[in-house]
Amino acid sequence: MTISIAHLGPAGTYSEQAAVFYVNWLGKSTGVETMLCPYASISQSLHAVADSQAQLAVVPVENSIEGSVTMTLDTLWQLDSLRIQLALILPITHTLISCANSLDSIQTVYSHPQALAQCQGWLERFLPRVQIIANNSTTAALELLEQDPTIAAIASSRAAQLYNLPILASGINDYPENFTRFWVVSQGEVKAGSQGSKTGATHTSLAFSVPANVPGALVKPLQIFAQLGINLSRIESRPTKRSLGEYLFYIDVEADANETQMESALAELSIHTEILKILGTYNVLPVSAL
Amino acid sequence: MTISIAHLGPAGTYSEQAAVFYVNWLGKSTGVETMLCPYASISQSLHAVADSQAQLAVVPVENSIEGSVTMTLDTLWQLDSLRIQLALILPITHTLISCANSLDSIQTVYSHPQALAQCQGWLERFLPRVQIIANNSTTAALELLEQDPTIAAIASSRAAQLYNLPILASGINDYPENFTRFWVVSQGEVKAGSQGSKTGATHTSLAFSVPANVPGALVKPLQIFAQLGINLSRIESRPTKRSLGEYLFYIDVEADANETQMESALAELSIHTEILKILGTYNVLPVSAL
Repeated sequence: MTISIAHLGPAGTYSEQAAVFYVNWLGKSTGVETMLCPYASISQSLHAVADSQAQLAVVPVENSIEGSVTMTLDTLWQLDSLRIQLALILPITHTLISCANSLDSIQTVYSHPQALAQCQGWLERFLPRVQIIANNSTTAALELLEQDPTIAAIASSRAAQLYNLPILASGINDYPENFTRFWVVSQGEVKAGSQGSKTGATHTSLAFSVPANVPGALVKPLQIFAQLGINLSRIESRPTKRSLGEYLFYIDVEADANETQMESALAELSIHTEILKILGTYNVLPVSAL
Repeated sequence: MTISIAHLGPAGTYSEQAAVFYVNWLGKSTGVETMLCPYASISQSLHAVADSQAQLAVVPVENSIEGSVTMTLDTLWQLDSLRIQLALILPITHTLISCANSLDSIQTVYSHPQALAQCQGWLERFLPRVQIIANNSTTAALELLEQDPTIAAIASSRAAQLYNLPILASGINDYPENFTRFWVVSQGEVKAGSQGSKTGATHTSLAFSVPANVPGALVKPLQIFAQLGINLSRIESRPTKRSLGEYLFYIDVEADANETQMESALAELSIHTEILKILGTYNVLPVSAL
């Protein structure tokens, strides 16, 4: 059996890079065969898994500089069948790829909005007069570069190699400490051991809406975890898209959803939330460990 | 004296529209003269106020469908001298502007990433094969339209009028209930009445970092307000940009910073936070009220 893995394409994106790391890790531990499937958007790569066109998707969740990838959060809320199986943390180093002889001849720079934002200081300093154009992915514009030496793209050095294109500048991200967290997502239920037994997961991701906009509506859900000494590693709000000022909350908790303590926390949480979704319980794999 | 008001340009953006509403409101109540100053980015319009090139900036904070405008939040954290004076809520209706005779001849659609995201369902349905290109603003591409009938832009109907360009489709946002909240920002301290006296503000916006990533680090700050019965209307997290998993929190509180109760809440909050910034205490002006 071959496992097909959906990711943001075309080839050479950071999502594909994370998927390749995952494939190597999976191959070493299981020997299973895999096939990478690029999609034109993050939303489409998640829908591919929900529609059973792919078994897994590797999607970016959050960058240490630019924050949440809102398309991932919004799409996961909509697609009830999906569960997070693993988190991957990838170090990000952006390069400027172009067939130009020097920076002076560049007139247009293409990339994904997150990458453009992560290099905005560098762009303002070294290419203050160029037109900046955002694409669906870091690699969407790479096929244009050979025909036109006045354009450049911001992508990974791996992308430059794949497309056999020259790198004009390396490490152009404004903050050298730049990491993106990805989730590996499949269809399925939350992994469950026998009742109350741990599966060894270190993180659980939840999303919920609260019943009414009253003082303390969010405090109660957070208190449940604080009182049990369970750390929240992240909280993010997103609009419900119903009305300005109504939010969904996404929280990451440092615990296995199948621990007895977490099971009671989740039971109590369901009382104080309107809709509660367990997005998954999983481990985190730093990519340097591969 | 003329008050200069910075906003995202070029002319015809929703930021400019919000600024025009503000100017009309200000003119009616004070008779003061104003001048609109377009800037190429939201960040630049805020920096213009910090650098005293403009007295005020009108910047988008949050959209009811796409959520936070992260550039506004990140820039306000950096620029300590700025304070929010007023919030404006503007209804958003997007139109497709183009010199094309029909949708069939459109090959490229330009707009701001927020507007593109707010119309993505419509674009997938009616223009599934076009190239989507994100610009710094909804109006950045409008000057290209007359020369090239294969391109279109998503902007307001007011922008079409200003540039004398035809509207090909109206109300193309995926959710008809679409609102953007703007902040009017100036240099200055938080408005203060005599000690403990109200200024009549209905909202206070705060931003803070927490001392350590321990269970309950965020619960304590939220509890302070819950215990006093003060409603939080919004919480947003942003990366500190130091390390993945470290966040700043932005909260909007439904109270005047100069109420006695809020003064004690803020004093207690400063004990439980690392850095605490009061971004402003202000009223909210729905644009329909103008």
